[in-house]
Amino acid sequence: MANFSIVGKRIPHRDAVEKVKGSAIFTSDIKLSGMLHGKILRSPVPHAKIRNIDISKAVKLKGVKAILTSKDVPLIKYSISPTWADKLILADTKVRYIGDEIAAVAAVDEEIAEEALELIEVDWEELPAVFDPLEAVQPGAPRLHDEVENNISKTMSMECGSIEEGFAEADVILEDTFQTQAQSHCSLETHCCIATCSPTDDVKMWVSTQAPHPLRQRLAATLNIDAAKIHVSAPFIGGAFGNKIDLEPAQALCVLLAKKTGKPVKIEHSRKEQFIATRMRHPTRCKLKFGVKRDGTIVAKQAEVVLDNGAYNSHGPAVLAYHNVMFSTLYRVKNIKYDGRLVYTNKNWGGACRGYGDPQASFAQEVMLDMIAEELKMDPIDLRLKNANIPNEVTANAVQITSCGLKECLTQARDKSEWTTKKAHKQKYRGIGVAAMIYTGGGSIGSGFNYSGATLQMNADGTFHLLMGALDIGQGSNTVLTQMAAEIMGVDPESISLTTADTDTTFPCMGTFGSRVTFCAGSAVTEAAHGLKKQILETGAEMLEANIDDLEMKEKKVFVKGSPDRSLSYAEIGAASFYKKKKPLVAHGYYNGPEVPPEFNPVTYEGYPSPALVFGTHLAEVEVDPATGKVEVLNFVAAHDLGRAINPLLVEGQIEGGAVQGIGWALMENLQFENGEVVNPNFHDYKMLTIKDVPKISSLLVETVDPNGPFGAKGIGECAMVPTAPAIVNAIYDAVGVRIKDLPATTEKVFQGLKTQG
Amino acid sequence: MANFSIVGKRIPHRDAVEKVKGSAIFTSDIKLSGMLHGKILRSPVPHAKIRNIDISKAVKLKGVKAILTSKDVPLIKYSISPTWADKLILADTKVRYIGDEIAAVAAVDEEIAEEALELIEVDWEELPAVFDPLEAVQPGAPRLHDEVENNISKTMSMECGSIEEGFAEADVILEDTFQTQAQSHCSLETHCCIATCSPTDDVKMWVSTQAPHPLRQRLAATLNIDAAKIHVSAPFIGGAFGNKIDLEPAQALCVLLAKKTGKPVKIEHSRKEQFIATRMRHPTRCKLKFGVKRDGTIVAKQAEVVLDNGAYNSHGPAVLAYHNVMFSTLYRVKNIKYDGRLVYTNKNWGGACRGYGDPQASFAQEVMLDMIAEELKMDPIDLRLKNANIPNEVTANAVQITSCGLKECLTQARDKSEWTTKKAHKQKYRGIGVAAMIYTGGGSIGSGFNYSGATLQMNADGTFHLLMGALDIGQGSNTVLTQMAAEIMGVDPESISLTTADTDTTFPCMGTFGSRVTFCAGSAVTEAAHGLKKQILETGAEMLEANIDDLEMKEKKVFVKGSPDRSLSYAEIGAASFYKKKKPLVAHGYYNGPEVPPEFNPVTYEGYPSPALVFGTHLAEVEVDPATGKVEVLNFVAAHDLGRAINPLLVEGQIEGGAVQGIGWALMENLQFENGEVVNPNFHDYKMLTIKDVPKISSLLVETVDPNGPFGAKGIGECAMVPTAPAIVNAIYDAVGVRIKDLPATTEKVFQGLKTQG
Repeated sequence: MANFSIVGKRIPHRDAVEKVKGSAIFTSDIKLSGMLHGKILRSPVPHAKIRNIDISKAVKLKGVKAILTSKDVPLIKYSISPTWADKLILADTKVRYIGDEIAAVAAVDEEIAEEALELIEVDWEELPAVFDPLEAVQPGAPRLHDEVENNISKTMSMECGSIEEGFAEADVILEDTFQTQAQSHCSLETHCCIATCSPTDDVKMWVSTQAPHPLRQRLAATLNIDAAKIHVSAPFIGGAFGNKIDLEPAQALCVLLAKKTGKPVKIEHSRKEQFIATRMRHPTRCKLKFGVKRDGTIVAKQAEVVLDNGAYNSHGPAVLAYHNVMFSTLYRVKNIKYDGRLVYTNKNWGGACRGYGDPQASFAQEVMLDMIAEELKMDPIDLRLKNANIPNEVTANAVQITSCGLKECLTQARDKSEWTTKKAHKQKYRGIGVAAMIYTGGGSIGSGFNYSGATLQMNADGTFHLLMGALDIGQGSNTVLTQMAAEIMGVDPESISLTTADTDTTFPCMGTFGSRVTFCAGSAVTEAAHGLKKQILETGAEMLEANIDDLEMKEKKVFVKGSPDRSLSYAEIGAASFYKKKKPLVAHGYYNGPEVPPEFNPVTYEGYPSPALVFGTHLAEVEVDPATGKVEVLNFVAAHDLGRAINPLLVEGQIEGGAVQGIGWALMENLQFENGEVVNPNFHDYKMLTIKDVPKISSLLVETVDPNGPFGAKGIGECAMVPTAPAIVNAIYDAVGVRIKDLPATTEKVFQGLKTQG
Repeated sequence: MANFSIVGKRIPHRDAVEKVKGSAIFTSDIKLSGMLHGKILRSPVPHAKIRNIDISKAVKLKGVKAILTSKDVPLIKYSISPTWADKLILADTKVRYIGDEIAAVAAVDEEIAEEALELIEVDWEELPAVFDPLEAVQPGAPRLHDEVENNISKTMSMECGSIEEGFAEADVILEDTFQTQAQSHCSLETHCCIATCSPTDDVKMWVSTQAPHPLRQRLAATLNIDAAKIHVSAPFIGGAFGNKIDLEPAQALCVLLAKKTGKPVKIEHSRKEQFIATRMRHPTRCKLKFGVKRDGTIVAKQAEVVLDNGAYNSHGPAVLAYHNVMFSTLYRVKNIKYDGRLVYTNKNWGGACRGYGDPQASFAQEVMLDMIAEELKMDPIDLRLKNANIPNEVTANAVQITSCGLKECLTQARDKSEWTTKKAHKQKYRGIGVAAMIYTGGGSIGSGFNYSGATLQMNADGTFHLLMGALDIGQGSNTVLTQMAAEIMGVDPESISLTTADTDTTFPCMGTFGSRVTFCAGSAVTEAAHGLKKQILETGAEMLEANIDDLEMKEKKVFVKGSPDRSLSYAEIGAASFYKKKKPLVAHGYYNGPEVPPEFNPVTYEGYPSPALVFGTHLAEVEVDPATGKVEVLNFVAAHDLGRAINPLLVEGQIEGGAVQGIGWALMENLQFENGEVVNPNFHDYKMLTIKDVPKISSLLVETVDPNGPFGAKGIGECAMVPTAPAIVNAIYDAVGVRIKDLPATTEKVFQGLKTQG
């Protein structure tokens, strides 16, 4: 490892103490004089025509300051991409799920706003609804969107090589179907926003978001106002996990209520709203057919996939594409066929959720590999090693891989977990399972869709200030990115102050998602820091009357190499710059994804231009209670190739968090619907892991030092939950021979499996 | 006049509608979860030793979260300059005026905090006090500060030429003494601040201040913390007039209370606190002796000045220096002697107040000139024209004048006011008076003490964002500075959004005072704009494959001259820059006052290096009610040389505001003390002009186009009230022969004068 002072150090999260002590200020903590409270009337029915909305009683309620229905708002459909736009901020003629936005009220307090909602009378014509995507595609099924036939929002079909020839070559062919359930993001902070709107229509928003700059653009487009009139900033964020990338209807309504009333307006989701009316992880049904040689070489793989989109697109089409890319790119398979459909149903809408389709793909593929290993009587790790991706290859679906540590992840996790010993000396009701993964570690598709900027300036007192559009949503980017700047400037990271998540004062940044921040924002930060270092050395050279090449920067000083007495402190340089030389020391860095190459096929996503790919392996050891079916995770090893760990402590935090979320999805988390209604919209009925359920998690950091990443780093955030569920499910099978193909692997299902075995 | 599109236009104040409609957010409007309210225990006696402070009862009051006394705070004295430091944020052993800070309480609401103040028991030893500066300098007078003999904080003695030879040359010598009273700033918003302090001691403040960056530095020095750990930002400011430049003890206490409690704390001054415990305009006593030739040439002028400093220095020493510089620089007089003393008394402390000593100097000198004109039987305007400064001269006190329109101000005001006609056809009880002025129009003393930075960036959609440390405290700088940027970028000023008054995201700026913002921040803005224009043209040249010299920028487009079809919109350039070229378009500008020249004498202030000087003339017409002595101002003409009016509408606003404040000071405003106690600390007893009292004010803008100012502009803000009072007082004399030498010229005094005449 290179000789770094700050990079690679286990530095605690910058915000840790502030959050633990409760002094961190979240959006909800902000109140402004005269501030009104907004509430949203939501559809209580899954599918209906709106004949009429009567607000006459509600407007008369004392304390009500404004009511908006679709007549009062721009009827501009949106999605994360204009191509897929299908959602209005308020339903005009139709509602499509229980939770759909119908009207918004601003009142002097939340209670009055809620009372007003009850006084709004909606005249419905209920319509037949459809909740199962397989039913939704049938002829004659209720149609959600007039213009969308068979409720199919998007299809994606790809064939690489020849699937027919592939299967012809195979010694063994296995087929099976795997299903995954809806998961809620469960961030402890619900969506919250405050908007003010000046009489000249200048909008200022404080908002819990993962993507302030895109939010500004989406608000502008959806409200038909100029983006330059909107100022978005994000206070501390209490978790997001993909749920706070979209424009939320509440945010747009908040702006319009502020505009209508001339007062600040706050809208804060209740926990129930968070469960029923924000995004969920897309449920999937994935039919797989794999062809393998006796030696374990996978020669063909085929997937037939249905993603349950819920009522609106949000990220759906991109999640489908990612499902394909991740499924198809992992392992060196020449012949691949993928057929996916994204299907509307009258349910809560799917969206970005940690992993972005990849955990669903991983679950199907990795359980299938376990079944193949069994069939071939091959060690599951050996099977994966046999087919593992290698550095600098181009895959069958034309994806360029640069650094790749998949094999190292597999072997290191095997060693750490004592896999071989445990396999050799199997204990009853105990099992061990493995799964592998691939994901992007440098954000999404190329130039224009994957940008991050940074500005680093030296203050007059020789300290530094870093401005970035990228924001810390809890994952620790503020710590990691200041470490990079600190390494280059030769100072402690704590001494670099920060402005982030503010659309006015920072350069555009796509936001915090896609495991992109370390790579993309990190690239911008290092560029800015190198630029600033050059300026400081130039200033030092001028002041010391020395050659710039003879200078060094260390311990907050610029000095002539070999003549430590000829030196200037950073404070002296800062003061001279601001108070004498009329030249502030400031430098900018900007990362923009690589140009989308002509090889990229936007229909099939072949040649997907990922700036970096990350790999990993999870290895779970479980014990199953034969009397009840209850699964206990005893040990967990997670090995991740992340290029370089800028801060191993925070990487471990990410990995542990991801594993916990993954174990939850594997064993219990399940957003359950009955006739389109979420029946567990609270933390009592929606089961998550508690601290008691969390096993010992061993994180192994495989540092492949990516050629393009800052200090060689790639991403980790989303990756850390991708292979968790199949590792658990494979371990359950290893323990008791019950094969779960339909998540979650609840105690009840395992018990049923045991019962069937007899 | 040059052919400008935006500069010189009467564009309304950017914030006008927002403020009028009440939607502007001031510091007081901000509330945070768990926020506590701070209150300050102030001395009820003018001079005493503190034997003991007993907080035992107060701490027990339910709802009280923290109490600070001098034992809990750094005992670091401060002032605007470390040289003059004499004030603690909490008195340790002694209080020196009624209002001095003794303790601070944070509680869950203001009422409880106030109740706690009453429970704090202070054991006093009262000391004899002194309220009159002439008594304070006598041997044996009570001494305020142990280390300061005779209570003289500072003296300033200067002789230019030979005062003796000057008087020897004179045909006529006049002597008299003039006195001015304390004035309160009376901003409608009182001091208000909110502080949060993280467990890692990162401080964030929202504060009503004129100088966020210096405030950060002063807080750091006074609290002995690192400036980089403090983030100051200023929401809308509801007026300041010099009273919000200093560090206010409340601000430092707010930080310490936040630190101690771990909660956000707000401290908002009551109106009474604003009157008794923030700064005031220094009362002065000015004994003048002038020697003139029969033709009106002033050959010698001598001043003996006492400034009543109140209990602490604040800006006092600098105000004394300015009193000298402005008195001595105005008019071409070869022989000058100045002797000034700044004297402590047990009263509210003097500080910066619009004009910074100059209105006091102007009052004495300009009334004296009126007396000389009478003595010489010379027209008062002719007398001033005879002695007026001229462009590019170096004065007897070695001040370099660049642009100078004093003569134009005098003659244009004379014409506008119909002075000659009115003098020729005098109506009974009506009179007309004149006074002239000089002031700095580009801020204070040179490099390192007069800096302002600006960053201008093009957004991805081709709009612009301007970041500046300078802030709009109501005077309109946001409008004026965006006009300058808009002129250069070829867009509407409204389309340029702004970040100001934020220490993290903007370059250091000395702040908004000293009539410096248009000149200094304007210089930074124009530099940034020219830099950005170059970048845009370079980008355009590259994209259009054209030579940069062949390109023009107009109507939000870059195009090839003569080929308007070969063009790119700003939006296209912005998008390419951010989404294709990886090169944000951003440029910086930084103004720093000229290096202090070796000729400058810091003891006498000879050679004061002002970046620009401004001149002006006020001409008042009054009618005096002979029965009551009541003075009505009928007409008012104000001519100001401000280099160039970037926005004549806002300049007129400044002039009108200045004149109104000046008329108030001339006729009624008076912070009155009895035994050190302010007896009129409210808007009922402290008389100000109301809208009914405001005469028609005609503003004449004399545009001398300063060689150093941005677009030729100089300052106006403070200047506009400098010569108002003497113009009024001279008009009263012209009307009824009553000569007021002791401000304010109340109805009572004028009536007494009339009675004395009989």
